[in-house]
Amino acid sequence: MPRPFNFSAGPATLPQEVLEQAAAEMLDWHGCGVSVMEMSHRGREFMSICAQAELDLRELLAVPANFRILFMQGGGLGQNAIVPMNLIGRSASRTADFVLTGSWSIKSHAEARRYGEAHIAAGSATGRQAQLPAPSSWRLSPNPSYVHLCSNETIDGIEFQELPDLRTLGCDAPLVIDCSSHIASRPIDWSRLGLAYAGAQKNIGPAGLTLVFVRDDLLDHALPICPAAFNYRTVADQGSMFNTPPTYAIYIAGLVFQWLKRQTESGLTCIAAIEARNRAKAQLLYDCIDGSTLYRNEVDPTCRSRMNIPFFLADESLTDAFLAQAREAGLLQLKGHKSVGGLRASLYNAMPLEGVQALVKHMQAFEATHG
Amino acid sequence: MPRPFNFSAGPATLPQEVLEQAAAEMLDWHGCGVSVMEMSHRGREFMSICAQAELDLRELLAVPANFRILFMQGGGLGQNAIVPMNLIGRSASRTADFVLTGSWSIKSHAEARRYGEAHIAAGSATGRQAQLPAPSSWRLSPNPSYVHLCSNETIDGIEFQELPDLRTLGCDAPLVIDCSSHIASRPIDWSRLGLAYAGAQKNIGPAGLTLVFVRDDLLDHALPICPAAFNYRTVADQGSMFNTPPTYAIYIAGLVFQWLKRQTESGLTCIAAIEARNRAKAQLLYDCIDGSTLYRNEVDPTCRSRMNIPFFLADESLTDAFLAQAREAGLLQLKGHKSVGGLRASLYNAMPLEGVQALVKHMQAFEATHG
Repeated sequence: MPRPFNFSAGPATLPQEVLEQAAAEMLDWHGCGVSVMEMSHRGREFMSICAQAELDLRELLAVPANFRILFMQGGGLGQNAIVPMNLIGRSASRTADFVLTGSWSIKSHAEARRYGEAHIAAGSATGRQAQLPAPSSWRLSPNPSYVHLCSNETIDGIEFQELPDLRTLGCDAPLVIDCSSHIASRPIDWSRLGLAYAGAQKNIGPAGLTLVFVRDDLLDHALPICPAAFNYRTVADQGSMFNTPPTYAIYIAGLVFQWLKRQTESGLTCIAAIEARNRAKAQLLYDCIDGSTLYRNEVDPTCRSRMNIPFFLADESLTDAFLAQAREAGLLQLKGHKSVGGLRASLYNAMPLEGVQALVKHMQAFEATHG
Repeated sequence: MPRPFNFSAGPATLPQEVLEQAAAEMLDWHGCGVSVMEMSHRGREFMSICAQAELDLRELLAVPANFRILFMQGGGLGQNAIVPMNLIGRSASRTADFVLTGSWSIKSHAEARRYGEAHIAAGSATGRQAQLPAPSSWRLSPNPSYVHLCSNETIDGIEFQELPDLRTLGCDAPLVIDCSSHIASRPIDWSRLGLAYAGAQKNIGPAGLTLVFVRDDLLDHALPICPAAFNYRTVADQGSMFNTPPTYAIYIAGLVFQWLKRQTESGLTCIAAIEARNRAKAQLLYDCIDGSTLYRNEVDPTCRSRMNIPFFLADESLTDAFLAQAREAGLLQLKGHKSVGGLRASLYNAMPLEGVQALVKHMQAFEATHG
């Protein structure tokens, strides 16, 4: 029986090959006699797994040498506090600027207020937005410690198609992005960034692993109240081994990176090939939505997310019937976030084109009978 | 081929049955079509896995109803900061008392100083100890927010055989224990405790999961700088789902709890049966050490750890040869912690008696040729 297509926003679908390899290696990794879960994090075997995962990730996303890659714990919500604990002391203003574009950036802003001034440079802490505020309209503070945005809003389905260049706005503060729900789905312009973080449980691997990419010059600004386990300098200097890292999650993420590296197409880098595929998947679904009278997506086409696509039925009383029939057709986890309602399809890297085709087929059939 | 015996101090050996079940269920949990790793943490399936794990753990350790069980991230080192962020504000003194008995309690003390006064009530922040300071000798501060100890020092191999009753010392502050390396190896006297925490990667499951048992009345004392993701009240009120929890690690821990519950013997509760087995395993190894002239353990017999047994060769130049021959005999991870040297055998719940018998046999054979 084929596996169902799982459109969960996270934890989310993983490549079948990765799960098969993990199952096959569960009791004995590469003949060493123990499971990856049972390995000392300081042993030769796990150190090699971790180093390879970091190397593959660095290659995949073309992470420059002046950025450290940290494997941390605590997820995006943890980083909402850990970022200001590490960075807000960077300038005397002890102010961080926030661009509010949806649920996740609003949470980041609220959390930062524990550690200094959290200035709203654009957007609003209430109400949903259909469009991203143009960088030229941002009201940045005079000397912020950093500028924060969420580059893909998982709940609202709104995505920056390009990162802003703060220097063109007369600001030399580092840009910090929460890219949890679209990391590794497209290239990243590191020249515009100071720090990026991402919970792994959407596009990378199991929940419980958080990736942090931090530029060297940002390692040494932690407030005294920053826990050692969450101090970027400490974590970086110990190669993410200050605390016992989430070893099994790192191993699975490493298998995902290797799977991603196998997704090359002739003439394209790996990440460009992945981006092209994600673009095609999203286009297929948006075309279905826009071409129907039953479905609608409320986000402006200039900033629609390729990863998380919320949509609504013209007659919302049909939502439960849509979900039940989708489930019967092997299309899982299409319910919208509780704060938004409606429906949502997350099309992460591991979702094949066939999954989106099956969803579109179901949507069209449902519209034919209920439209 | 039988699996080798893995004496790692953590991440550590897991029951073979648990790994076999995890491998078998990797692609499809109970017919739902997806891996546990791919499940939304708010979906029916994972909610049932998480609730069952908590229920089993509560039953196994007889955790009273007025204690919450939290599934957190960040490990023991994370909790070294998270505990004071949540508890040090409990009394006006903003002072926590520490009993220093080895490497881990020393780390806890150092971290707490970020958040208030960290008073050394007993022991010393330098030098190894062969004995635990008697509670009657502790110099507690007048009104501490809490009193902290590490009930089993993983590196030093020293264990409290009984928790102190602070009330008999005229202190009504809550006792906080780091029980990472002996949780679920013996019963816990909850009447003497306010809070217990444990990294999972020793006796419970994969690294990346931290268990916190916290008494209801201690939930509401967090400092304003405590991140929401690490605020006990927030985590408790959201049933450990404020942040996406480390779902796969919780699932594996749940399988371990079920395995533990199958280890009953007639007339004994499950945890008493496990304790009896651990006692026998430790006795076998200590008897071998004490009966030899080649091996020695430096901890006073009244407080030797049943879980982590460091030992040294009379001629330390033989250590590498001992380790190499042990490895050939299928006895892994016996090297001592780098700060201590020598050898260490960790005998967690998942280490069968046969593993300790094989180790003792190897030690006796090695002594016969090198003694």
